[in-house]
Amino acid sequence: MKTFLLLCALVPVLLLPPASLEAQPISGFSPEGAAAQHQLEARFDQLLRAQNLDDWMKHLAARPHHVGSEYGRQNARFMARLFESWGYETQIVRYEVLFPTPRIRELQLVAPTRFTPVLQEPPLEEDPASQLTGEQLPPYNAFSADGEAEAELVYVNYGLPDDYEQLQRRGIDVKGKIVIVKYGRSWRGIKPKVAAEHGAIGCIIYSDPADDGYARGEVYPKGPFKNEYGVQRGSVLDMPLYPGDPLTPAYGATATADRLEREAAPTIAKIPVLPISYHDALPMLQALQGPVAPADWRGALPITYHLGPGPAKAHLKLAFDWKLTPAYNVIATLPGSTWPDQWIIRGNHHDAWVNGAADPISGMVALMEEARAIGELAKMGLPPRRTVVYCAWDAEEPGLLGSTEWAEDHAAELKEKAVVYINTDGNGRGFIRAGGSHSLQRFFNEVIRDVPDPQTGVSVAERARARMMLTGNAQERKLAAEEKDLPLYALGSGSDYTPFIQHLGIAALNLGFGGENAGGEYHSIYDSYHHFTRFKDPGFQYGIALAQTAGSCVLRLANAEILPHNFQDFSQTIAQYTQEIETLSRQLREEAERHNHLLEKGVYALATDPKLKLQPPKPKEEVPYINFAPLDNAVVRLRRSAAAFHQQLDAAQSLPEELRLRLNQQLQQMEQLLTREEGLPGRPWYKHHIYAPGFYTGYGVKTLPGPREALEAGHWQQAEKQIAILAELLETYSSQLDQLATSLSPAAGGRQGTLKK
Amino acid sequence: MKTFLLLCALVPVLLLPPASLEAQPISGFSPEGAAAQHQLEARFDQLLRAQNLDDWMKHLAARPHHVGSEYGRQNARFMARLFESWGYETQIVRYEVLFPTPRIRELQLVAPTRFTPVLQEPPLEEDPASQLTGEQLPPYNAFSADGEAEAELVYVNYGLPDDYEQLQRRGIDVKGKIVIVKYGRSWRGIKPKVAAEHGAIGCIIYSDPADDGYARGEVYPKGPFKNEYGVQRGSVLDMPLYPGDPLTPAYGATATADRLEREAAPTIAKIPVLPISYHDALPMLQALQGPVAPADWRGALPITYHLGPGPAKAHLKLAFDWKLTPAYNVIATLPGSTWPDQWIIRGNHHDAWVNGAADPISGMVALMEEARAIGELAKMGLPPRRTVVYCAWDAEEPGLLGSTEWAEDHAAELKEKAVVYINTDGNGRGFIRAGGSHSLQRFFNEVIRDVPDPQTGVSVAERARARMMLTGNAQERKLAAEEKDLPLYALGSGSDYTPFIQHLGIAALNLGFGGENAGGEYHSIYDSYHHFTRFKDPGFQYGIALAQTAGSCVLRLANAEILPHNFQDFSQTIAQYTQEIETLSRQLREEAERHNHLLEKGVYALATDPKLKLQPPKPKEEVPYINFAPLDNAVVRLRRSAAAFHQQLDAAQSLPEELRLRLNQQLQQMEQLLTREEGLPGRPWYKHHIYAPGFYTGYGVKTLPGPREALEAGHWQQAEKQIAILAELLETYSSQLDQLATSLSPAAGGRQGTLKK
Repeated sequence: MKTFLLLCALVPVLLLPPASLEAQPISGFSPEGAAAQHQLEARFDQLLRAQNLDDWMKHLAARPHHVGSEYGRQNARFMARLFESWGYETQIVRYEVLFPTPRIRELQLVAPTRFTPVLQEPPLEEDPASQLTGEQLPPYNAFSADGEAEAELVYVNYGLPDDYEQLQRRGIDVKGKIVIVKYGRSWRGIKPKVAAEHGAIGCIIYSDPADDGYARGEVYPKGPFKNEYGVQRGSVLDMPLYPGDPLTPAYGATATADRLEREAAPTIAKIPVLPISYHDALPMLQALQGPVAPADWRGALPITYHLGPGPAKAHLKLAFDWKLTPAYNVIATLPGSTWPDQWIIRGNHHDAWVNGAADPISGMVALMEEARAIGELAKMGLPPRRTVVYCAWDAEEPGLLGSTEWAEDHAAELKEKAVVYINTDGNGRGFIRAGGSHSLQRFFNEVIRDVPDPQTGVSVAERARARMMLTGNAQERKLAAEEKDLPLYALGSGSDYTPFIQHLGIAALNLGFGGENAGGEYHSIYDSYHHFTRFKDPGFQYGIALAQTAGSCVLRLANAEILPHNFQDFSQTIAQYTQEIETLSRQLREEAERHNHLLEKGVYALATDPKLKLQPPKPKEEVPYINFAPLDNAVVRLRRSAAAFHQQLDAAQSLPEELRLRLNQQLQQMEQLLTREEGLPGRPWYKHHIYAPGFYTGYGVKTLPGPREALEAGHWQQAEKQIAILAELLETYSSQLDQLATSLSPAAGGRQGTLKK
Repeated sequence: MKTFLLLCALVPVLLLPPASLEAQPISGFSPEGAAAQHQLEARFDQLLRAQNLDDWMKHLAARPHHVGSEYGRQNARFMARLFESWGYETQIVRYEVLFPTPRIRELQLVAPTRFTPVLQEPPLEEDPASQLTGEQLPPYNAFSADGEAEAELVYVNYGLPDDYEQLQRRGIDVKGKIVIVKYGRSWRGIKPKVAAEHGAIGCIIYSDPADDGYARGEVYPKGPFKNEYGVQRGSVLDMPLYPGDPLTPAYGATATADRLEREAAPTIAKIPVLPISYHDALPMLQALQGPVAPADWRGALPITYHLGPGPAKAHLKLAFDWKLTPAYNVIATLPGSTWPDQWIIRGNHHDAWVNGAADPISGMVALMEEARAIGELAKMGLPPRRTVVYCAWDAEEPGLLGSTEWAEDHAAELKEKAVVYINTDGNGRGFIRAGGSHSLQRFFNEVIRDVPDPQTGVSVAERARARMMLTGNAQERKLAAEEKDLPLYALGSGSDYTPFIQHLGIAALNLGFGGENAGGEYHSIYDSYHHFTRFKDPGFQYGIALAQTAGSCVLRLANAEILPHNFQDFSQTIAQYTQEIETLSRQLREEAERHNHLLEKGVYALATDPKLKLQPPKPKEEVPYINFAPLDNAVVRLRRSAAAFHQQLDAAQSLPEELRLRLNQQLQQMEQLLTREEGLPGRPWYKHHIYAPGFYTGYGVKTLPGPREALEAGHWQQAEKQIAILAELLETYSSQLDQLATSLSPAAGGRQGTLKK
């Protein structure tokens, strides 16, 4: 720290941040420490160059670079060389992962008329990247089953469990049929999973123009939205069970690892699945008859949507090359000057479905510029005090394979050393959107308080707060009006934070800007440099804002005297989630009562047009009163323990170095107390008991997933059991906070004292 | 009454209604009277024949029969002859009304490409009615201005005042432009009115397939919905100002009446207006550029909707033949056996835009069958005790001309003699929907308690209640769960009840079945016998149900010993409306505060994508606290007076005949106490102060229109003035109830006594 302060004193006056910023306190820093940190961040900001982002995107997104592609391998080496040149100890860490690519993709409408879909996206003259047809993966869903099916089609809306209930009420069974389903409302992998559970033998997923096409705005190349041929590729791996290589669950897919037989891998889809464009879907949907689809099922194609089954009949044949493929993670380490065994990990994936300018390169290039600037600072003699690890993941697209294998492979070391994992992925223009561990909420709000929004000049936090005031729900409006912290959303899945937080219990953040960069290029050949620089973040202003935001996170976490975790934010959030599931339980009970009452009264039969031949829904099981008391008590204790800890910490006049070290060590491992080795019911890979992706939502989060999903599934005993488990975890967490508070008490002299080193 | 009871005793046992029905009390009848009435209604029901409805519809809807058409005149004579044959004293009452028909209808897209809309609906082989092209009125909007305009197009969504605010925020002015606007969300006449207020020089109204076309279901002739060529004709007369002949406001359009100059008639549209199909709208919308329309403005055409202005440019030329046209009302009277000077009036219009099988013939034929059966009963010696007047109105379509002129022409007599006006119009399949004076709510609920639903066998009331339980809002669900009366909706406008209730203060009901007969035939050449009998009410089951419902209303009102008005229902409804406008006032205040606070904080600028160039909205005027006390006090008194009156009435052991006569005379005129000669602000024709069509919604009702519309328009002083006026009316109404109660007190012996003659 001596060196650090000394060097700060040398910073010329011109480079000082404005007084207002400099005066802002930063959690975990003493006043002098905060002032120095502000100066450091000002220098960091001044090192950032938008031109670098532009150059690197042009290079990295120039050719298709999916996992296993030659260009993907070259990109890994290109980045590794750069990290090395910036002073990082850099490795390319290779895993051998299962990555199926298509051998046969056949789809025809065979009745009542014949139609052969094009199943390709045409290259566009305006967009050179779209012309590299020889290297592009065609539209497909990775981890579809091999198979052949010929059957009548049924239109199943978004393919959610509730959609099948609606079909059932109309006497429509998808057993032995091929379903045609819209992208949206759930993660794509849920769609074939639920279809197969209902007996479907094939699944066609298409992008309806209501959600992703001309109804949203002008289509590419005139505008950013999906044109009639655009197709969303993507994985249908059952990630809510476990992500990563399907053959090596919970351990690294090294060259020599034991592997499951493919047939035994539970996360591979059970039926063949193929994504298509709305051009290709139109004749199939048009050929359907049967009941007219319910009003809220209709899309924006110029037809009357029918449910089927048939007379539209399709033939679907898919076969894949199920090869092991090398995935190349780039791991670049800048050792900490003071606490080298405490790691701040920062990651973004580098593989794409095709050229992937937005997804993932827009985030990747911001990460690179951030790493370059931090490397520069280190070269100037301002190294991070903790170790910084920059990661470029491969094989994220097929199912978080690169990050998951690395995290599994280094589990023990990570649990010991990792402080926080900070993730980004594609980045856009507009408003900060951040999710993560709620013990980092206050910390993150201090960061975005200090980063200017490029379009308006106010802080990133103030702009996000303005949006919340204008368009938020009642709770958000209230928070915004009271100038409270912006809430972090809870993490579900869909990017590389998952193995870190949900498997290992490492506190995590996931960041990005967006809201003003809508488009339809996602996972298509049109996600290109051309598209990105016209429609997403022209000039890379928000790429720089992301580098500033994530970079400040890294630098503050790396240099904090005391780690900035705040458990009062966490305890308030848990109290809120507890309230939510108690409300859920009450609502389920009231709904079941009302539902069954309506059935008994014959209301469905009386209130429904007899010509629709709509069966009444099934009765619902009665919902018992659930014992939430253990959780309620645990929440009360958590709030109290968190308050007591922070009171002690605030009051601590000075901390002996040894105590501080021990405190930091314990703080960084608090999140692990929220995990259990046994994991969640039915999916032991997911160990975190506060945040998990929903078993039937996919990317969408379920907070307090143990009790919440048990309640939603009507498993009442399971719900009570999970409540008890969760309460016990929170009690342990509170005990640890109490111990930390006790350990601080000798140092806590005054009531309002300030933390000193 | 002697004859009546005597004859009832002769009814054979076989014809008796089920005991359960017979046992039901009926308001206004003694127990014996109620039993006799149930028997009468059972005989009435048995006389009804669906085949008659079918035959008459086939005849009346065989050819186009708009006002002024030869077939319309023949229909009037056909019906008059039938009424006569059923024993009614029948007149054809003629008025000379302004009815413009098109001479020139020209529309072209002249830039950026040329396109000439077809402006015609093709005849269909399946539907003979559609082939009578020589007699059809082409698609047009009656009471459009004559005129020629060539200008850029602007897409204005539904053309509501709020839509123009959205345009203004995007810097788009319709001044000097032609607007293209969707049907729906407001009555069509509001669209050119608001467009003209904003400076537009022409208006094109089209039916978007999202609201009225393939997005709703299969199109005609495959299904009932609007095909790409279907066009909704209709009037754009400014009916919220006054309906009826524009040249003779508030007096009858007799041959010799003084007439305004056409130029001075304030209800004729200010700009040329033309309705078109979605086939014709598509190229125009497709040619628009400028900002992409907001998400909730988009329809179901397969395009990206833009706002313009231009480059799409249209040429519109319209000229009309502004001739006076004879309108033939058929007025058929069956004199009351006991109280001939008390009239129960029952009406439905007979003119259509083209063949009009659904609108209006489906209601007309039910009315005719009802009249026939009542005539039969009279012939059997069971005449109504009060006079029954059956009316078939002409010229409803251009703006309630036939009914309005008759009501204006006979205003004094009607105010003296009319008890209730019962209206129907087009009828469909499904659920009863009824609006009207809330003093008739209890009465109406007793009627529908006793009419069986043809599809389910339960009562019409029970089916409607089931629907309310399943799909109603919270308040409706609560009412339904508690088995409370079905609320009557409040009457706005759009059919022939308007002159009776809103101009003359005659208590009214408007009835119809619907909810299971959706289609797109409205005001098109496809509203035919073919369409109706396939899709609307096959077998005329609900035509019979309507005849039963309206017929029971007529018979009960005609025979009731005491008129069945219930003022407790009325007072509760007024209390609810008062609550609503007080809530409105609070919400307006809170919204203005929040809105101005957001503006002051710069939230709109910060939370909006700068690339959209969206101006912040204008600040709102501060909303003062309004003095609702006079109204609140009047409502308290009204509730008390109503309760006291009904307590006295219930307690009355017997009423001397003279007192009963006087009571009935006063009851039938209660509704007139809710009118004021001065009428509503700015529209003196509308005299009722509880119900009125909204000045900016058209058909949509505004209850307590004086204060409500003043609040909505931000006229705070006017609101207070209107509150005082309304309070005074209600005080007068309560005084009258108090007087009635006092007049009953000598007769009110016991606490729980039953009404006796």
